[in-house]
Amino acid sequence: MLRGIDPLLSGDLLKILDDMGHGDQLLLVDRNYPAAASGKSVIRLGEVGVLRAARAILSVLPLDSFIDHPLERMEVEDDPVKTTSLQNDLLALASESEGRSLEYGVIPRLDFYQRASAAYAVVHTLEDQPYGCFILHKGVIFQPVA
Amino acid sequence: MLRGIDPLLSGDLLKILDDMGHGDQLLLVDRNYPAAASGKSVIRLGEVGVLRAARAILSVLPLDSFIDHPLERMEVEDDPVKTTSLQNDLLALASESEGRSLEYGVIPRLDFYQRASAAYAVVHTLEDQPYGCFILHKGVIFQPVA
Repeated sequence: MLRGIDPLLSGDLLKILDDMGHGDQLLLVDRNYPAAASGKSVIRLGEVGVLRAARAILSVLPLDSFIDHPLERMEVEDDPVKTTSLQNDLLALASESEGRSLEYGVIPRLDFYQRASAAYAVVHTLEDQPYGCFILHKGVIFQPVA
Repeated sequence: MLRGIDPLLSGDLLKILDDMGHGDQLLLVDRNYPAAASGKSVIRLGEVGVLRAARAILSVLPLDSFIDHPLERMEVEDDPVKTTSLQNDLLALASESEGRSLEYGVIPRLDFYQRASAAYAVVHTLEDQPYGCFILHKGVIFQPVA
């Protein structure tokens, strides 16, 4: 437990989020995603959904403002326009966190499985909504904190 | 770099601070302290003084409210009352951070060297004031953050 830091952010997860640099990608995935097989570091959050996990992660992680789609989602049923309620909620959360209106990048399901190869780490949840898989691209912080 | 987190808190240091639980002790030491020989995890902050390091650490680390002296300092020249300006400044900083008036526990110099054996980790600075060695006892957080 640390002051001002969401308790869902364990030491291991904090280390990963801080070790990541500009452009590094974090996969945030549902219970069915083949996280372990990715060969990347996997943080298992246990019985927590993607939205709760994203709230904790986005409380400290800036998204990349240098690219058009710093937030990507898995495509739903081969329809690039169709979204789930979870995907809508996460987009609203990320837009609020960033203070700007974000739009999703959309990744076909089978392509998404390949994207783990370019990820820095995978955050695994027990999200039960289908297509609950996302990629977050880390951004930069220019303003002084201390 | 993470939002709202002092940039001096690297991933490695954040992991240590978060992994620590109630009562775990962190040594914060000057350039002359035998940190590596302690056999504990050592985080080297490079050319940073103890006060700057403490400001970063105390921005997230609560001190123990269950004991009388959650902050201890190395005794100066065998005089338990004598203090250095650094020790005075650090006490003021910690009291402000905690929102309560703290008093130091005082540890004779040779005893301080033994205290590393009970520490969770050592944060090593390039502090150049003598007797710039401290022990921080981690406290608890009850209020919800998220």
